Amino acid sequence: MSFIHPDFMLKNKTARALYHDYAEGLPIIDYHCHLSPKAIAEDHRFRNATELFLGGDHYKWRLMRSNGVDEALITGDADDLDKWKAFAATLQLAIGNPLYHWTHLELSRYFGVDELLTPESAEAIYEQVNACLQKDEYSVRGLILRSNVETICTTDAPGDTLEYHAALRDFPVQVLPAFRPALDKVDASIVKDLDFFHERGCRLSDHAVDDLSEKTVETLIFLGKEYAKRGWVMQLHLGALRNTNTPKFRALGADCGCDIASDMQLAEGLVKILDGLEKENALPKTIVYNLNPKDNYTLAILIGSYQKGPTPGKLQLGSGWWFCDQRDGMEAQMRALANEGMLARFVGMLTDSRSFVSYTRHEYFRRLLCNLLGAWVEDGEFPDDRKTLEKIVKGVCYQNAKDYFAF
Amino acid sequence: MSFIHPDFMLKNKTARALYHDYAEGLPIIDYHCHLSPKAIAEDHRFRNATELFLGGDHYKWRLMRSNGVDEALITGDADDLDKWKAFAATLQLAIGNPLYHWTHLELSRYFGVDELLTPESAEAIYEQVNACLQKDEYSVRGLILRSNVETICTTDAPGDTLEYHAALRDFPVQVLPAFRPALDKVDASIVKDLDFFHERGCRLSDHAVDDLSEKTVETLIFLGKEYAKRGWVMQLHLGALRNTNTPKFRALGADCGCDIASDMQLAEGLVKILDGLEKENALPKTIVYNLNPKDNYTLAILIGSYQKGPTPGKLQLGSGWWFCDQRDGMEAQMRALANEGMLARFVGMLTDSRSFVSYTRHEYFRRLLCNLLGAWVEDGEFPDDRKTLEKIVKGVCYQNAKDYFAF
Amino acid sequence: MSFIHPDFMLKNKTARALYHDYAEGLPIIDYHCHLSPKAIAEDHRFRNATELFLGGDHYKWRLMRSNGVDEALITGDADDLDKWKAFAATLQLAIGNPLYHWTHLELSRYFGVDELLTPESAEAIYEQVNACLQKDEYSVRGLILRSNVETICTTDAPGDTLEYHAALRDFPVQVLPAFRPALDKVDASIVKDLDFFHERGCRLSDHAVDDLSEKTVETLIFLGKEYAKRGWVMQLHLGALRNTNTPKFRALGADCGCDIASDMQLAEGLVKILDGLEKENALPKTIVYNLNPKDNYTLAILIGSYQKGPTPGKLQLGSGWWFCDQRDGMEAQMRALANEGMLARFVGMLTDSRSFVSYTRHEYFRRLLCNLLGAWVEDGEFPDDRKTLEKIVKGVCYQNAKDYFAF
Repeated sequence: MSFIHPDFMLKNKTARALYHDYAEGLPIIDYHCHLSPKAIAEDHRFRNATELFLGGDHYKWRLMRSNGVDEALITGDADDLDKWKAFAATLQLAIGNPLYHWTHLELSRYFGVDELLTPESAEAIYEQVNACLQKDEYSVRGLILRSNVETICTTDAPGDTLEYHAALRDFPVQVLPAFRPALDKVDASIVKDLDFFHERGCRLSDHAVDDLSEKTVETLIFLGKEYAKRGWVMQLHLGALRNTNTPKFRALGADCGCDIASDMQLAEGLVKILDGLEKENALPKTIVYNLNPKDNYTLAILIGSYQKGPTPGKLQLGSGWWFCDQRDGMEAQMRALANEGMLARFVGMLTDSRSFVSYTRHEYFRRLLCNLLGAWVEDGEFPDDRKTLEKIVKGVCYQNAKDYFAF
Repeated sequence: MSFIHPDFMLKNKTARALYHDYAEGLPIIDYHCHLSPKAIAEDHRFRNATELFLGGDHYKWRLMRSNGVDEALITGDADDLDKWKAFAATLQLAIGNPLYHWTHLELSRYFGVDELLTPESAEAIYEQVNACLQKDEYSVRGLILRSNVETICTTDAPGDTLEYHAALRDFPVQVLPAFRPALDKVDASIVKDLDFFHERGCRLSDHAVDDLSEKTVETLIFLGKEYAKRGWVMQLHLGALRNTNTPKFRALGADCGCDIASDMQLAEGLVKILDGLEKENALPKTIVYNLNPKDNYTLAILIGSYQKGPTPGKLQLGSGWWFCDQRDGMEAQMRALANEGMLARFVGMLTDSRSFVSYTRHEYFRRLLCNLLGAWVEDGEFPDDRKTLEKIVKGVCYQNAKDYFAF
Repeated sequence: MSFIHPDFMLKNKTARALYHDYAEGLPIIDYHCHLSPKAIAEDHRFRNATELFLGGDHYKWRLMRSNGVDEALITGDADDLDKWKAFAATLQLAIGNPLYHWTHLELSRYFGVDELLTPESAEAIYEQVNACLQKDEYSVRGLILRSNVETICTTDAPGDTLEYHAALRDFPVQVLPAFRPALDKVDASIVKDLDFFHERGCRLSDHAVDDLSEKTVETLIFLGKEYAKRGWVMQLHLGALRNTNTPKFRALGADCGCDIASDMQLAEGLVKILDGLEKENALPKTIVYNLNPKDNYTLAILIGSYQKGPTPGKLQLGSGWWFCDQRDGMEAQMRALANEGMLARFVGMLTDSRSFVSYTRHEYFRRLLCNLLGAWVEDGEFPDDRKTLEKIVKGVCYQNAKDYFAF
């Protein structure tokens, strides 16, 4: 049996039934990612496995650095095959790390590679992946088309022309912009950007909330009101501490694998934003994401104060994200949400990714979800009522996002 | 087999033996709750299931709001049966939420309802519960009497006449006051209130410690000395952030489901209080409760500095409380306490509740305790020495509280 | 079967194979402890079980206090056998506490005691241990020699003559100093102490980082540069709040069981230190230890920003330590590290102990490690590739420390 087999991560019988009967075939709504709309519009082709798997993926860079790999083999100008081999040698030892699972899922699902990636198999797998990448159906659009994605929301700055989104109007997968202004640059003039994005189908904003200063609170209250007016969803990604390695930042720029989770306090600042909006009856649908797992309960509890009909799960505890999107992190997020609110109303997974083969993270999430629900059922903590379980599984994997975002 | 069955939550053989042999029949000492002494004295009768289950229960309100239920069907003036149905529809989807377990325990233990509460069964169950509530033995006192409670401590403000407690002197269940002053109103004159409460059998105080300012520290040192003199127990409920939804607070007042767990720092402030008292050799028996589960270890470790014979467990890590009193939260609290101190000396569960059918939370706690101990035994982490296990189980479920509070 | 049996804590078949095939016989590199070099040099003899097990062990003192034992029987002048009996009575109830496991491991491994320590067995076990302690091979050196230790690093202050280390040059176990200056006393003159320690084989420093003030940050940057020059490892033990019980501190001095885990914020201060050093290309190999388990992920993530070849795991998340070195704490540390980095490159366990029978904590750690890895394999989360697993197990238990410290 290959490592990635049909019941991968499904550790009980009910989990297997829930996954295969309800979750497996559902389309994906990937409502937050960092894919390049330009790369989709231009239907970029990857020169090889190294570009596809390692280019721009700071998760993998961090892991390779942890394994003592020289930077030349990570972001430097070493040979692509050598980089791939260095990655394989790292991965072989990466027990307990999500990249072990993700990479093998990606290799299996997109390239039919069912062998383990090791220093011994690295070159053969490299050739196998590269051979696929030569084919037309492995272009960026081809990869997306084979991923069963229904909607993709990219992350775009005000002022963007959204020309690539326009160019993608006839692409069978919906590619929409999401609005992400730098908070320190927001003023009243942003309203026209909002209107322009709205006209282009945007229904979702996103904010890197790295501090909760008075200024940040005010800015988010201002923006939140605009989002509420337009029926948008507001996403708050809380608590990153960025560019913590100055020499790396100078050499490689931002997003080089040197952002971390801060341990700042969140509750009071977030209350100021959400209550500030609620006081004006202008709180939009909002998703809050914590980057530090110690804050799971703080946020799972906090959002309960602002829930309000008629939208089920108007406030959402965002999916385990970035440093939390492994098995333990996703499960911890789902348990916190279930304990303090309605897991059944969760809008579920997003890739948050720069990679065109990251849709398997949705599969990974769905397996973990079904595994958790199945364990509860088999432990007698929830009745084995398949009709209700079907509604919950399909909801969290697809339908809730569909209804919530209403793209 | 019905959902609530004899071995509910007891997932190993030893757990089942420990629960049924030692825990099941023990009386309850409910040393902290928010029941109305007036309602007990006047032997209030509930008009229907909605009043009993949903009246004043902000846990359920929060869950219904999370499910998108309109406020009219929660705290508003909608029809009682419609409210009940809205709750049933919410509950059916509440996988992983403690209310799923609590509600079904309450329906089963008090009303013999062994069916699941769903939109389909809601009306029939409503009738069945209402039919019971017509009977004399389902008055407030009747509900208490059928709960195997030995002692109830209510929560009372200085200045209270305690007339209802006096009126309950002949009620077979001991109903005692507990002293809960607002910290910002404490001055030297409070001593006469303390004496009055003491004379009426009070041996327990309680404090909402929402900040750890200099003033709060000083006030608690002042009060602690008074408690120590009288042999009282001091309870500190730490870290709530209250009334976070201003419109809801304006419409519904406090306790409407919009208090949350703060993420304030606790250790330094708490050390000032406890060391401040210990320096004057005036530290009373003290229970500290954290509201945010991230603080379990901070407090479990901290109390170890102030433990002192001859009282076993003089300092207590309070039971998983409010946002932590679910399966995961209770288990996390017990594990933290066991790892850092003496779980065997724990005074155990309290309802902290406004509901007269919440005693089943003690049953829930006992099941979780036995499940945890049983798993340790079956995993070879503790010997299967039934005499010692009996002492531990009976201690945590009943005897420790009996000895510690000495009402 | 006795409580400590060959498969103690090994709950799956793979775990048992990994432990017995790869981990069990490996020597120990105990790179951080608080053993007295004087006691080793003078080959101290223990008068009885009480001196050996309870003398100076504030873990046990805390537990006894939590059980209501009078201080006279803990640190006071009560009879040694009575102290031992009070400890036995405490331990019997200490379900879920690491001392239950550690003590029985120590009794079994060093003294062949396979009976449980209870009030009933206490006196017989006392005699059995004491009889051993009469023998020459149970002196301090004898205990070390039977522990399969290869290297011991003690903890020593600048200015120390290191005469005992010198006297131990011919002892078959390597006993090296580690450099631990009080941060508030560091100035440029410390360089000569560093050189002296280096000449005596020291390759490791250690710091109690109880705050992250500007002064502390500057001092650690200054020291870090000196360590980097010499190829040393820098250890940062973060976040203790010390001497929290003033009367106990006055009576017993420091290290009396009244230090606790603070809940201070760590990320920003630590970034200042590590980035400050990296900016000068002077970051030494560094191990960061958190004392509060809520910070596991904060640190596991943070170190990833400073990883750099060619050293695998140049930055280390220190082993579960002090209040975290129980089963739950060690497992949580390993999971956090695995999820965010390379568990396979972890330098593993240390005793951090003042006790000459604490080497069994390495055995305990190895069992937990194998249990975790085995569970992952049996759950299909990592392939059953014994060659890779052997490398990981042997690495974490021994070889990684050997390579990393290069004593």
